[in-house]
Amino acid sequence: MEVGHCQKSAPTPTPLPPDKRLGYAVVGLGHLALEEVLPALSNCKKSRLVALVSGSPEKMKKVALQYGISSENCYTYQTFDQLKNNASVNIIYIILPNGLHKEYVIKGAKAGKHILCEKPMANTVEECREMIAACKQAQVKLMVAYRIQFQPHNRKLREYIQQKTFGIPKYIEACNAQSTANVNHWRHNKALAGGGALPDIGLYCLNTTRFILDMEPTEVFAYQYSTPGNPLFKEVEELVSWQMRFPSGIIANCATDYDVHESRRYRVNCQKGWMNLDKAYAYKGQKLTTARAEGTLELQQEVEIAENNQFGAEMDHFSDCILNNRRPFTPGEEGLQDHIIMEAIYLSAKLGKPVQIPPADAAKWRGPEPKIS
Amino acid sequence: MEVGHCQKSAPTPTPLPPDKRLGYAVVGLGHLALEEVLPALSNCKKSRLVALVSGSPEKMKKVALQYGISSENCYTYQTFDQLKNNASVNIIYIILPNGLHKEYVIKGAKAGKHILCEKPMANTVEECREMIAACKQAQVKLMVAYRIQFQPHNRKLREYIQQKTFGIPKYIEACNAQSTANVNHWRHNKALAGGGALPDIGLYCLNTTRFILDMEPTEVFAYQYSTPGNPLFKEVEELVSWQMRFPSGIIANCATDYDVHESRRYRVNCQKGWMNLDKAYAYKGQKLTTARAEGTLELQQEVEIAENNQFGAEMDHFSDCILNNRRPFTPGEEGLQDHIIMEAIYLSAKLGKPVQIPPADAAKWRGPEPKIS
Amino acid sequence: MEVGHCQKSAPTPTPLPPDKRLGYAVVGLGHLALEEVLPALSNCKKSRLVALVSGSPEKMKKVALQYGISSENCYTYQTFDQLKNNASVNIIYIILPNGLHKEYVIKGAKAGKHILCEKPMANTVEECREMIAACKQAQVKLMVAYRIQFQPHNRKLREYIQQKTFGIPKYIEACNAQSTANVNHWRHNKALAGGGALPDIGLYCLNTTRFILDMEPTEVFAYQYSTPGNPLFKEVEELVSWQMRFPSGIIANCATDYDVHESRRYRVNCQKGWMNLDKAYAYKGQKLTTARAEGTLELQQEVEIAENNQFGAEMDHFSDCILNNRRPFTPGEEGLQDHIIMEAIYLSAKLGKPVQIPPADAAKWRGPEPKIS
Amino acid sequence: MEVGHCQKSAPTPTPLPPDKRLGYAVVGLGHLALEEVLPALSNCKKSRLVALVSGSPEKMKKVALQYGISSENCYTYQTFDQLKNNASVNIIYIILPNGLHKEYVIKGAKAGKHILCEKPMANTVEECREMIAACKQAQVKLMVAYRIQFQPHNRKLREYIQQKTFGIPKYIEACNAQSTANVNHWRHNKALAGGGALPDIGLYCLNTTRFILDMEPTEVFAYQYSTPGNPLFKEVEELVSWQMRFPSGIIANCATDYDVHESRRYRVNCQKGWMNLDKAYAYKGQKLTTARAEGTLELQQEVEIAENNQFGAEMDHFSDCILNNRRPFTPGEEGLQDHIIMEAIYLSAKLGKPVQIPPADAAKWRGPEPKIS
Repeated sequence: MEVGHCQKSAPTPTPLPPDKRLGYAVVGLGHLALEEVLPALSNCKKSRLVALVSGSPEKMKKVALQYGISSENCYTYQTFDQLKNNASVNIIYIILPNGLHKEYVIKGAKAGKHILCEKPMANTVEECREMIAACKQAQVKLMVAYRIQFQPHNRKLREYIQQKTFGIPKYIEACNAQSTANVNHWRHNKALAGGGALPDIGLYCLNTTRFILDMEPTEVFAYQYSTPGNPLFKEVEELVSWQMRFPSGIIANCATDYDVHESRRYRVNCQKGWMNLDKAYAYKGQKLTTARAEGTLELQQEVEIAENNQFGAEMDHFSDCILNNRRPFTPGEEGLQDHIIMEAIYLSAKLGKPVQIPPADAAKWRGPEPKIS
Repeated sequence: MEVGHCQKSAPTPTPLPPDKRLGYAVVGLGHLALEEVLPALSNCKKSRLVALVSGSPEKMKKVALQYGISSENCYTYQTFDQLKNNASVNIIYIILPNGLHKEYVIKGAKAGKHILCEKPMANTVEECREMIAACKQAQVKLMVAYRIQFQPHNRKLREYIQQKTFGIPKYIEACNAQSTANVNHWRHNKALAGGGALPDIGLYCLNTTRFILDMEPTEVFAYQYSTPGNPLFKEVEELVSWQMRFPSGIIANCATDYDVHESRRYRVNCQKGWMNLDKAYAYKGQKLTTARAEGTLELQQEVEIAENNQFGAEMDHFSDCILNNRRPFTPGEEGLQDHIIMEAIYLSAKLGKPVQIPPADAAKWRGPEPKIS
Repeated sequence: MEVGHCQKSAPTPTPLPPDKRLGYAVVGLGHLALEEVLPALSNCKKSRLVALVSGSPEKMKKVALQYGISSENCYTYQTFDQLKNNASVNIIYIILPNGLHKEYVIKGAKAGKHILCEKPMANTVEECREMIAACKQAQVKLMVAYRIQFQPHNRKLREYIQQKTFGIPKYIEACNAQSTANVNHWRHNKALAGGGALPDIGLYCLNTTRFILDMEPTEVFAYQYSTPGNPLFKEVEELVSWQMRFPSGIIANCATDYDVHESRRYRVNCQKGWMNLDKAYAYKGQKLTTARAEGTLELQQEVEIAENNQFGAEMDHFSDCILNNRRPFTPGEEGLQDHIIMEAIYLSAKLGKPVQIPPADAAKWRGPEPKIS
Repeated sequence: MEVGHCQKSAPTPTPLPPDKRLGYAVVGLGHLALEEVLPALSNCKKSRLVALVSGSPEKMKKVALQYGISSENCYTYQTFDQLKNNASVNIIYIILPNGLHKEYVIKGAKAGKHILCEKPMANTVEECREMIAACKQAQVKLMVAYRIQFQPHNRKLREYIQQKTFGIPKYIEACNAQSTANVNHWRHNKALAGGGALPDIGLYCLNTTRFILDMEPTEVFAYQYSTPGNPLFKEVEELVSWQMRFPSGIIANCATDYDVHESRRYRVNCQKGWMNLDKAYAYKGQKLTTARAEGTLELQQEVEIAENNQFGAEMDHFSDCILNNRRPFTPGEEGLQDHIIMEAIYLSAKLGKPVQIPPADAAKWRGPEPKIS
């Protein structure tokens, strides 16, 4: 028996008994669901998988067998509305193409279930508003799955900013880029995806910057570019590079691209030091580095923090909110605000001039800070 | 819905249906079981938790509830032998203090169950031989839980050696050290632990060096030291520093200490480059770096490899061996060989001179290479 | 005698005999001259210190003694014009506050000496044009001291771009920031400095991006900010953050700040990998890292390159141009182009909209590539 | 003019006027002299090159021209003794094959000049004793060129040990390896080199460990190995791997090899952290990393320290000792002690058992700590 490695571990996790955990219906069995969400549910403390929804009967049958879901807990999009009769389902997790979010969030709300919706929340600001209204009317909770806000390295960096550990931040450099290749994927279809690199991956730069600064931008200026002739970018854009101006004078320079080697990071440049987070938006592997001076020495510090499962953390947070009747930390309004800014970014790139963002205050929509183990 | 991060992912995992997975009885509910093994079982593809054995009824009750284990599948050390009547149990995983391994491995074998035994395998060479014999007689498989041999970074480094990517290795530097503080823990009790830093953590340097080199040492020389007056080291040693000589002329310099800041690494120095593995023996966070020259440039390369859950990997490997009736990659003889070398190390330190190791060939006891996703 | 470390060294340097090296008169004995330029001259191969010009007789006396410069080779700004009678002086190196560059470059040219001028070249585009014209008329060579263009890591990265080692670049993130504190320093005086962070340090982002891409931007958009009430920024700006658009569609996001912890780096994001240069603009300590994928592995590579002395390299390059009657790699027109772009950056920040840059082609003004050992 | 980079710089260096600097005669114009020592002298503050000694008239002529040394200041080994008549020569720096050190140190002492001798000091303990005696009798100072003891990163690490910044050290891992290829080089000739990897490069592990610990080992155990049939190792050894035991219980594991990719590092493992120095023994590029815990965080810190020129630092230190009539920090006895230990290492490898080292105390021979800028 091995006894090491214990000294810095978190307190022993104490999962709720299986029958006390809230039941999730997972809607959409794509890569994200199969490779991340379903395995994460197996190790959740307050959540468990109870139902599946898919348009592919064969795939669903296989997955159901693997995860021990009986056939009466398997639904198609035609039978989606019957979820309302399934008492074991507390939460519906929408993992569909962006263009379908609105329809199924509203349907789910009408079924009387709480809704966790993948990001981007929808295709347009208008859709977001409808979704929020529908959930409000149905008296169910709505949360957008901003997993980064439940990730320990990002949270630690935000804490450093709040505590002014490195003094006041002056500007931020953020980018989220990856290489895509499958022209038939729905992400290159404007109607289903709503846009290209910006809503899919650039959104992380936008949302995380707002999250760590606890501040809302007042103006954006953006360039947009797609390599001519590349069929991937026939409908949706390849590159968006934008600056955001914040009330305190901070500038954030952000970039996203669909034809660039994977690069998911940001750096916060402060008066007395900087913080850099590599793999900031990845599922794991975050690497937090900080720098500051001490006398004549320059100290560059790698801060090792135990990783968590971000999907598990956000699902358990939502279960916790429901169990305790609290607002989620990232409710629908959090997704709406990102769409307001993304529309301004697109408009700026189109007009070739800066675009203003209406004043907003996230404190008005956020629930209490999540406790992340 | 987010669609990135997919391009380099492993193929979609395909867990066996729950009722096809082999059933594990976990014996001993200490830190390792609670924080690593039980959560790992929740995500295994071919293994699942079906029974618990503990001397603490209260703790067991809580854990059973958390993991959905019914009370008839909970055993004490008094009722351990009744495991033989539990058809859902295929494998017994012994996670007890080292000094108790022999007794419960033999009991488990007599119950007709396959045995996975934590490392170090036992307290003495003699005990290891008895355990191997008992499992042979009972016609059950015996595997020692050398999780590092199922860890992707360590396996990749071994592959580099096999392929002579950096030429021939000349010497290895390995250390595994940590800071311990609890004088009441059984690891500081000679009868329960069998020794101090060497069998508990130094064993990793020894076993991993043999594993990556695919070679057995022929001679060792060792120093042993314990800080005088430190009550932690009243019964067991603090520091062992030893050299191992291999037939090809390679030397491995190893060190282990119970009163040193956590440091778990090794470096293989080869003719045309070196390979360094930080956090080599940790549960996760391995960082593989290599160096070589290219013309006038010196290239230092960090090789990112997707992590796995080592505990899950070794449990699923053992399940796979049983499902396919194959020898495990790390059977009892693998543990025996380490104990033969550890006894030589202790003897060298005691005599103040080198000690020979009898010739051995791991190919004779190892089963086929595991497939690690 | 130690014989290692040789295998990767550059060929043995072969300095010219002292009396064959070209003679430099160093004008201005501030930090840069005392700590960098004078020591660099001691190890130059084709250049040597022969004269000093300073407004501080005491300081000059001390420095002259230290460097073995006789009193007849020491000049004041009043006697500057007498340099024309000093046959040992081939080159005048202007290391004065920016606002004085024009006056002394023109005077030096009229004295019939070749001119090396520190960057930024001047305060305005108009001044640059006058300086170029004066040197042309006097038939002397004019070079701007862009030391980064003579620095091996930056040159290697440029080579990677030229060879498309990581595919086509899509966007660049660059920043050069530092913390300044002395409100009495001329750099905070608009008349002497011409501007704030932008011409002093932000210029590196601008010039180096143009250098590595071998391309000229066509449009800029900029934000400018100074913390209200900070006396350092009464006359000159603190922060400039700007985007530059290049003809190929590449976007460069640049930022510079005078009240931020030292951060001097850029990253080039390409289709098949990225290149990151830390300490890119520092005097030494450059760290070049690249990333790319190889099958399922992500390889992050630190490329170690022998450092040079950038000041020595640029002075020897200029001596070499004069000895061989060639255009310098960074002539006056190179400085002029940066000033054209900086004026557009300031204008954009003032107007709140993008500003176009007239087409330009550096190949028209650059001399042959320097050979950097 | 550029004004950044100044805030953390050392105070402005103040070289002595050239005619006040002490004059060095450099004996032997191999790689080390040409590529390191002569350039370093050009930037020394208290030392300067005044004479050359070489057996190759042509090479000497070229070098003399390059460095402005007149022909009357050029000597052959036949005219070496005439150095005594050259008043400009204060110090003779012996950079010859090891086997010639004794002869020329003694000749130099008899010429009444102070002696700086490259490491290893000689071929045997006996030779070292003769050299010390000769210098004593001639009343000249003798220093061994242990440049690492004048290197800032190594000195900082030693300071951390002295101040117990990371608690008490428990064991050290050190290695110095490189790849050699030229079978005709004198380093593979036993009579000229005295040994193989051990005295040439392994010596750094030995000397630096003693230096940073301020402690002398009491026992060594060593393995020695040379790849059979490799002509490089016909006379001298390839690999030595040894353990050193110190009075406090600390163990140092050291290894050196002549057929291994360059690796020059050590790590000090302490109770509360570790310190790692990469490129520890290289001419430049040292990288100091430390680790410690802070609450649940593991902090790994890279400590950036301004580099110096080690050769310049040791030459100026020796000049300083002479100008102030002080013992050098690394006198002949420092070299003698290393030879005593190296002879024990060779003996241990030959006998296959540990060898004791007589008690010693470096405080008895060291002069005051050098001031390193």
